[in-house]
Amino acid sequence: MSISPLVRSPRLVALLSLASLAACGGNQSSAAGGGGGDVMALMQARDLTEQDVTAALKTYTPTGRHDEYYTFASGGHGGNLIVIGVPSMRILKYVGVFTPEPWQGYGYGDQSGDVVGSVTKGGHEITWADMHHPALSETGGDYDGRFIFVNDKCNPRIGVVDLHDFVTKQIVGTELIQSEHGAAFVTPNTDYVVETAQYPAPLGGGYAPIEKYDDEYRGAMVFWRFDNQKGRIVPEQSFAIELPPYMQDLADCGKKGSDGWVFCNSLNVERAYGGILEGKPPLESGASQNDMDYLHCINWRRCEELAKAGRTETIAGMRVIRLETLLQENVIAFVPEPKSPHGVDVTPDGTKVVVGGKLDTHCTVYDLPKIAASIGAKKFVGKDPYGVPILDFQDSIVGQCEIGLGPLHTVFDDKGFAYTSVFIETVVAKWSLKDLKVVDKIDTHYNIGHLVAAEGDTVNPDGRYLIAMNKWALDRFAPVGPLLPQNFQLIDISGEKMSLLYDMPLPLGEPHYAQMIKADKLHPIDVYKPIGFNPAIDQVDPAATVAGKERIERKADGVHVYMTAVRSHFSPDIVRVKQGDTIHLHVTNVEQAKDATHGLAVGGHNVNVSLEPGKHCNVTFQVDRAGVFPFYCTEFCSALHLEMAGYLLVEPQ
Amino acid sequence: MSISPLVRSPRLVALLSLASLAACGGNQSSAAGGGGGDVMALMQARDLTEQDVTAALKTYTPTGRHDEYYTFASGGHGGNLIVIGVPSMRILKYVGVFTPEPWQGYGYGDQSGDVVGSVTKGGHEITWADMHHPALSETGGDYDGRFIFVNDKCNPRIGVVDLHDFVTKQIVGTELIQSEHGAAFVTPNTDYVVETAQYPAPLGGGYAPIEKYDDEYRGAMVFWRFDNQKGRIVPEQSFAIELPPYMQDLADCGKKGSDGWVFCNSLNVERAYGGILEGKPPLESGASQNDMDYLHCINWRRCEELAKAGRTETIAGMRVIRLETLLQENVIAFVPEPKSPHGVDVTPDGTKVVVGGKLDTHCTVYDLPKIAASIGAKKFVGKDPYGVPILDFQDSIVGQCEIGLGPLHTVFDDKGFAYTSVFIETVVAKWSLKDLKVVDKIDTHYNIGHLVAAEGDTVNPDGRYLIAMNKWALDRFAPVGPLLPQNFQLIDISGEKMSLLYDMPLPLGEPHYAQMIKADKLHPIDVYKPIGFNPAIDQVDPAATVAGKERIERKADGVHVYMTAVRSHFSPDIVRVKQGDTIHLHVTNVEQAKDATHGLAVGGHNVNVSLEPGKHCNVTFQVDRAGVFPFYCTEFCSALHLEMAGYLLVEPQ
Repeated sequence: MSISPLVRSPRLVALLSLASLAACGGNQSSAAGGGGGDVMALMQARDLTEQDVTAALKTYTPTGRHDEYYTFASGGHGGNLIVIGVPSMRILKYVGVFTPEPWQGYGYGDQSGDVVGSVTKGGHEITWADMHHPALSETGGDYDGRFIFVNDKCNPRIGVVDLHDFVTKQIVGTELIQSEHGAAFVTPNTDYVVETAQYPAPLGGGYAPIEKYDDEYRGAMVFWRFDNQKGRIVPEQSFAIELPPYMQDLADCGKKGSDGWVFCNSLNVERAYGGILEGKPPLESGASQNDMDYLHCINWRRCEELAKAGRTETIAGMRVIRLETLLQENVIAFVPEPKSPHGVDVTPDGTKVVVGGKLDTHCTVYDLPKIAASIGAKKFVGKDPYGVPILDFQDSIVGQCEIGLGPLHTVFDDKGFAYTSVFIETVVAKWSLKDLKVVDKIDTHYNIGHLVAAEGDTVNPDGRYLIAMNKWALDRFAPVGPLLPQNFQLIDISGEKMSLLYDMPLPLGEPHYAQMIKADKLHPIDVYKPIGFNPAIDQVDPAATVAGKERIERKADGVHVYMTAVRSHFSPDIVRVKQGDTIHLHVTNVEQAKDATHGLAVGGHNVNVSLEPGKHCNVTFQVDRAGVFPFYCTEFCSALHLEMAGYLLVEPQ
Repeated sequence: MSISPLVRSPRLVALLSLASLAACGGNQSSAAGGGGGDVMALMQARDLTEQDVTAALKTYTPTGRHDEYYTFASGGHGGNLIVIGVPSMRILKYVGVFTPEPWQGYGYGDQSGDVVGSVTKGGHEITWADMHHPALSETGGDYDGRFIFVNDKCNPRIGVVDLHDFVTKQIVGTELIQSEHGAAFVTPNTDYVVETAQYPAPLGGGYAPIEKYDDEYRGAMVFWRFDNQKGRIVPEQSFAIELPPYMQDLADCGKKGSDGWVFCNSLNVERAYGGILEGKPPLESGASQNDMDYLHCINWRRCEELAKAGRTETIAGMRVIRLETLLQENVIAFVPEPKSPHGVDVTPDGTKVVVGGKLDTHCTVYDLPKIAASIGAKKFVGKDPYGVPILDFQDSIVGQCEIGLGPLHTVFDDKGFAYTSVFIETVVAKWSLKDLKVVDKIDTHYNIGHLVAAEGDTVNPDGRYLIAMNKWALDRFAPVGPLLPQNFQLIDISGEKMSLLYDMPLPLGEPHYAQMIKADKLHPIDVYKPIGFNPAIDQVDPAATVAGKERIERKADGVHVYMTAVRSHFSPDIVRVKQGDTIHLHVTNVEQAKDATHGLAVGGHNVNVSLEPGKHCNVTFQVDRAGVFPFYCTEFCSALHLEMAGYLLVEPQ
């Protein structure tokens, strides 16, 4: 884990010094305060190696230049989605998803609050999430740049973010399971978003003694139906399958020849549940007794048929295919997978799935056509305690690649190579899918978890860039107290050997997984058209306010204020109401100039909305005390921004 | 606002090509995937100019290398504080202050919720803020690196962040004023944190008709007393002064010879309040009728004496010195300031204050010794409608510097130069304090608001770096939908001419102002010592759990769970309670290894806390429904992190 030593070539020094003279002599005007082309002097001044110079010039993105790729990283327990430009590694945006975020006005007064608050637990609002695995929408197994799906491990939910305006449009959840981890993963045409349970519990919620774990606790896999036209998940067309009480973990969908299948690994087939103070071993040792866990191989296309045929039982509002039915129909089988498996990644050609065992030193490469054939021919060697048929390990694999200590996740390039994160050894290992041999390793700082390569989990990887998503940062950045950022490391994988380009601290949230997509696949809008568009309902709002038609109307349900925002005033700017009134603000930013965003904050009340150009917001709140409450624009919009303000005057009753 | 043209020197090309051959020949191993020292090839490959290369090499910070400066930027209506490393411009942390943030566990179950929720409005929680002006604590007018103070414009509050652990320790607020803008600013030894009202309202809240604006609406300036030993604001030792109903804006405290004074500009001395739908002009034009507003010159040291002498009236719990008293005691005077003033910045030597007029083309430089003398001698030329004496404009200034259209804020370097942000012209202007002449200008993208230089508002500026805090980004970054980031531009001010080094998007929040401090002035801890330390109460928690003493105790007020966290388990990991119970979790991370942070999330309940090494948290919540609720570690901590989980078992009644 040592940093690359200072390497210099005396000959290069000599030649660059000449160059620098020329530069300084000839280009003082462009010399940027005494630098210009004087590479050598700059290297010496900041103690940079040749490799540093290369990395700097491969990542530095000049003013106004756009990044070539977007990386979408989960925000971990920050609950928001992180958008990063590659190769500059600049964070372009945090998109509010599960956690309210006032800069975006997300959950602070307008209908975005209906989205973030749409799933409650026992009637209680959940205002955070533990986001793990974002999934870009796909067409034919390739990213189409339309949507991205994110999950909540702690309170099983899926969020749908529209990449047309980078706004969260929907959050769905189910009480069927009490936690999840393996989500979100999409089928190759985004027909379904897959979510797998993690910590077994009684299906549908409710209580059962932990001693009944084997009988009454269960795992599950949820298939959320996505309507590609409407851009929304359709809960009533979604379904789930019952699974044994193992900890189902990550999943990946088959592609090309293996399309129609989903593969999911598992841990704790030992069914340990801890009990330290009750004289039992801690879960982490109880769950690590066996040498093998079970790779779940599930024919989701057949499951879909079963669901459509009504072979389901509805639990907590979710249609569930019982394990018994899955077994009758031969749509699920297990294959042993080495110790404490974690990553499960289908190769671009769809013929193999690579599994990393956290407590193993190999990546195991499974043969998907063979597995499908064996299941079809019912070539089983045994059953698990729940009757799930088991395939022969040796008979189901292509082979194993000796990787190092603690292989986790694997991504792919366009040249037949796989890249595996190795947690304990804390490196990225590059290996050949052809002969399953490691060809290169690169250190990471420190303890890499996931990794992501440019379109590296699609049918058509780009190669080029890879990001190591490291869990610990330790001494890598200037100290910021006991809670440290994680460290993303951008790695150049275009050459034979991998090379480190950039270290990036993560200032908010602990990302787990990410996806990297070519920038030219996204076509976001920059203003809302026509004026009055409400992104929360994805259409022009019936209450949109037209310039010149601003008004205040007292109705049965309260005072309706039809307001416009334009540089540099709100109209109306004086709102006179009575204590106890309900206020309905219908505010439209009537501007159509790019970046002409206004915000509207109301003092004394927990209201702040963001009004991008053309956007309309509806805000409802109560005024339960008399007073003078200034409201104003919170997004700097012009030289007279400070004067873009008004008064909410609440007269005593 | 055009970007710098592509400049190349043919001679440099030739020489660097030679260099590149040497590099490629001699250093393939360090060639980083086919680059090495091949500067020319890299320049061509990515179309980089000489200036780009210089900028890249002046900002690129190799793996493991720490930044030289911290910049603390306000998070605008994101409500959180942004910590940025300079020169890399990497964001190191978002510190939760006014907005709950689950990654830090800030406001998600433990006592940090008492801090973020400590100020309510009419009994309602305020869960966001509009943070404008961070202020680092000072000793002798220089940053001491101990604390940073931040404000909330929308619901007047001040937050205190301890730079020893980067945690918010206190939030105070007052009902005296209904909005503020000019905050936070500290006196040279951090005796007081200054906060000025923005939009006038009846003091102490309550209603008055807008038509009574002149008589019943007022401005104010609050002096929050800070206890440097305890590191807390002491509300009962704080006081405020009553001001006329103008919009008091930014403030700056005198230093050295002018220590004891505070200077505050104002706008809308016209006392306009809009009324567009009622046939009146919008505020932004009503407030821009006069050519002059009033620079407020206030002797805060004398005000402190008056407060100590009990010359105050208590309004909404705040001791207020009435305007009448201020006039009797001759501790306040006005000096005219040109059209729509905004920035007010005292020079490092404390002899002058620079004011920028948004609708003016000058910076006006006021002579502080002269102003103090004139006030002492009561050399006044008139009074405002509220009886505040006015000094002669010409007699009070050193002179004016012709800057350009829309000068806003000014910072300083170590060589006698001032740097002013010019909003409409959208440049930074460098000018000499000696002869008040502009010597250089540099474009910004786009519409610069504030700017910050390394320690540039202290008695001892560093020069070196300046950041332009631009309000619009338009086309500068890869598109992310209608809501765009702002653009920070790092500028090298070490040379005669300013040069652009880096463009940085702001992914979350709209920063307004920032402060830049030498990294070696901060000494944050990396683990909490001794084990069991609770940062919310800044001491070892009485309920801290000792390893081996974990237990569950049922008491009158509920079930107390004394829990420890260590890789890779919680103990206890099974918690059996009854529906309706109140749970008190007392959880201690007993680790002392740097970065060995755990998180604790409880499914089905809105709980997630962050447990940095050695930290103790107390979490209280109700279980009002029966069920099986997994709890687990949310911060990846080891290869068996997924197994660091347990069950909260809630038996039905």
